Amino acid sequence: MHTDFINHISHYVELDDNSITILNKYFKSASYKKKEFLLREGQVCRSIHFVEKGCLRMFFINDKAGEQITQFAKENWWISDFFSFTDNKPSAYFIQTVEKSEILSIDILAFEAMLKELPQMERYFRNILQRAVAASQLRIKYMFELSKEEFYIHFCTSFPEFVQRVPQYMIASYLGLTPEYVSELRKKKL
Amino acid sequence: MHTDFINHISHYVELDDNSITILNKYFKSASYKKKEFLLREGQVCRSIHFVEKGCLRMFFINDKAGEQITQFAKENWWISDFFSFTDNKPSAYFIQTVEKSEILSIDILAFEAMLKELPQMERYFRNILQRAVAASQLRIKYMFELSKEEFYIHFCTSFPEFVQRVPQYMIASYLGLTPEYVSELRKKKL
Repeated sequence: MHTDFINHISHYVELDDNSITILNKYFKSASYKKKEFLLREGQVCRSIHFVEKGCLRMFFINDKAGEQITQFAKENWWISDFFSFTDNKPSAYFIQTVEKSEILSIDILAFEAMLKELPQMERYFRNILQRAVAASQLRIKYMFELSKEEFYIHFCTSFPEFVQRVPQYMIASYLGLTPEYVSELRKKKL
Repeated sequence: MHTDFINHISHYVELDDNSITILNKYFKSASYKKKEFLLREGQVCRSIHFVEKGCLRMFFINDKAGEQITQFAKENWWISDFFSFTDNKPSAYFIQTVEKSEILSIDILAFEAMLKELPQMERYFRNILQRAVAASQLRIKYMFELSKEEFYIHFCTSFPEFVQRVPQYMIASYLGLTPEYVSELRKKKL
């Protein structure tokens, strides 16, 4: 019944039983093994994804540094390439599971239909996206402000779960550090 | 009558004459001279701002580099510290006019009341924020991917207006470059 998903949405907008039934019909639930792809570079990102269980990463191929991770998503987070999703353009990104995951996805047509049938979901997504903009403003600030070591410490303090669940080389990639440097920082902390 | 503002919103949602009248009552219009502040570090950012005419910049004080610009806004763009605005927390930013500007502002209480009275504005802001998330995903990608020179060329190609209107040292700050480096790149281009 996607209880966590419904609870999460109910935190922002009211959903009666009828709305919950309508909502469920627009989302597709799927189980993914570790390292399965939900999106590959060159495809249009037709869906936004909600993590019910597990963890995803979004990355692109950087000519200089190989796989460059730009985002993670864990339980109750959304992930998508919003440029590709909104403008129907090929994506430059890959979205892949980091662990075995349960994902709810909604494609652009279902998204638009859902917003028409359940206008309160406009309010929900306005709230979620407002928080996403706030988070990216903060992230850009940190990218300018923090030294590599400070950035790593900040990440570990803010998202201790990721440090437990995600391989160290992925955290290094997300922070724009080398795996060797993160390894050194870890040793220093011990 | 804020024609550009109404046209801009009408691009996303339908507004009849009655809705336009209601909408106008929630926004405050103000004229600012060059270099006036709309927000200072330590204040709660209580409003979001729409640029009718002119140009704004958002910056913070970076211990290492002085004023670090993170955003500009020109005609038909919104600007705010969304973290401070959403969570009622003191801002780490300044928002200041780069030129003489005409600004429409709405504070958090008026924003919530407007969204209740004109629910189609939820849809408008969902759209605008979705595009803002898309833009920041792209920006973070560029920050990882592009060399300093590529970043500068990309900015000049994407936003030629800013290059005309904004002092060179501010563009350098936004791109995380020194004014001397931008000066060299300009000479190279001639």
